Amino acid sequence: MISVLSGGTGTPKLLQGIKRIVNPEDLTVIVNTLENDYFSGVYVSADIDTVMYTLCDLINEDCWYGRYDDTFITHETLKELGFEETLRIGDKDRALKIQKTQLLKEHTLEECVKIQCNSLGIKSKVLPMSNLQPKVTLDTDYGLLSFHDFLIKHKSRPEVYDVIYEKVEALDSVIESIEKSDEVIIGPSNPITSINPILIMPGVEKALKNTYVCSVSPFVGDDAISGPAGKFMKAKGFQTNCVGVSKIYENFLDHYIINTNDEKYKHIIEEFIPKVSVDNIILKSLDDKINLAKKIIERYE
Amino acid sequence: MISVLSGGTGTPKLLQGIKRIVNPEDLTVIVNTLENDYFSGVYVSADIDTVMYTLCDLINEDCWYGRYDDTFITHETLKELGFEETLRIGDKDRALKIQKTQLLKEHTLEECVKIQCNSLGIKSKVLPMSNLQPKVTLDTDYGLLSFHDFLIKHKSRPEVYDVIYEKVEALDSVIESIEKSDEVIIGPSNPITSINPILIMPGVEKALKNTYVCSVSPFVGDDAISGPAGKFMKAKGFQTNCVGVSKIYENFLDHYIINTNDEKYKHIIEEFIPKVSVDNIILKSLDDKINLAKKIIERYE
Repeated sequence: MISVLSGGTGTPKLLQGIKRIVNPEDLTVIVNTLENDYFSGVYVSADIDTVMYTLCDLINEDCWYGRYDDTFITHETLKELGFEETLRIGDKDRALKIQKTQLLKEHTLEECVKIQCNSLGIKSKVLPMSNLQPKVTLDTDYGLLSFHDFLIKHKSRPEVYDVIYEKVEALDSVIESIEKSDEVIIGPSNPITSINPILIMPGVEKALKNTYVCSVSPFVGDDAISGPAGKFMKAKGFQTNCVGVSKIYENFLDHYIINTNDEKYKHIIEEFIPKVSVDNIILKSLDDKINLAKKIIERYE
Repeated sequence: MISVLSGGTGTPKLLQGIKRIVNPEDLTVIVNTLENDYFSGVYVSADIDTVMYTLCDLINEDCWYGRYDDTFITHETLKELGFEETLRIGDKDRALKIQKTQLLKEHTLEECVKIQCNSLGIKSKVLPMSNLQPKVTLDTDYGLLSFHDFLIKHKSRPEVYDVIYEKVEALDSVIESIEKSDEVIIGPSNPITSINPILIMPGVEKALKNTYVCSVSPFVGDDAISGPAGKFMKAKGFQTNCVGVSKIYENFLDHYIINTNDEKYKHIIEEFIPKVSVDNIILKSLDDKINLAKKIIERYE
């Protein structure tokens, strides 16, 4: 049994490798729900949908959002009518969101995702971290911003002074899944807004301490591989590199994988993380993804 | 100034003729809102949308619902996901419905329709009869049914014992528009579920009595030109032909147009309606529609 903690971009890339190595029934992906919200009248759980599309090979790898085979007829017609959608939702992707929105009237988010995984033929388990969606507020030089306003409206440009969100209740199945796993993999996702919302839920850190946990750094040198992780790390007082990330995970991390060019940080991190491996963590080809996934699961032995 | 009272199929056909004769700024269409409701999370005002699409020449004339140039990608994907939409909503049409649903959070239905008419380049005025949507219940041999369950799920098959709906408050602009008109045209729509909901609103009948009102029969012989009008007329104790319809309008109707083959009813109706004309009211070609519209407005003089 393998559990993966995931956000919406870095970890799905690694998942493409993991899903080719691990028996689908033995894989659980626990997904961030921070800032899930309603847009254009539909419930958008962007990270969950990205993970589902990744697992059933429908993901649009250009933006790690939506389906690769989608059209944008409704979105474009809305624009012609004078209604600018905050999110660019594809016609097929909108169907998934409409279904989830309708299901949510009678089901928990956990149940909705289970139903949709069945519909998409996904045999692995996808668990939202919670049935709740913590709101996140960013304190920036543009004032207080919602996550989506920061990310989409202001294109991650503002300087970030603080990232504020509350902890929510984990699903029981999230804690159980971590406890039952032979290994938990924390993917190379944004540690502040994708992974930490999972970590701070009551019971999660305790469960992780009792399990073998491996993580892949989301940084190469001083830059996050994708997204605004650097700005958020800085705002929270962490170094914006693989060392900073390992500090967030130090209480429970057993094995940490950093990029080849970051070997200079290995001995520093080894002072508080039992095992550090150095490898190519820039996942471009499917082979890169499979190779890394294989070594993570074999624990570089 | 011409006002037209409209439902969703018969009257829009006539509208295609009227809009080619009347200056667009001098035309107001007052539209039924009976059983407007939410489907798949969007507000559906089917008759209003049909009238708007008719006025901007986007209407799908195969079913008098939605746009002629539409696709059904979201609808088909929903089906693949296991979610059967009650209504078959097109991708472009869904955009209009999403926009209306979002606008309704901050605007009245009247304002929403005005905004959307602007977006669609419609220069005539489209007025929902009310900002409210009376629910209609059908007492049938299948039990009590909603209008949409009768129409869509049971394909108008059940025998109808009664049609029950409450009266709602008319928009002020509806009463004003009728009062200011040189002529009010009641199109060949279902008298029970399309026209009568407008007529029973407080103030409407009084305003119609003070205006020249012309109506086109929705019946040819014993059959409604389209839809289940016959069943509803029978349930309400009216003859299912042009005579029955004229009885519903007798308090205010000045001029009534019946089909050529129904000439035998002319002398009966003339006992309580001041003027009855006989003409081809089966509107197949655009020429049919323009010819009839012209004669209605010229009052067959």
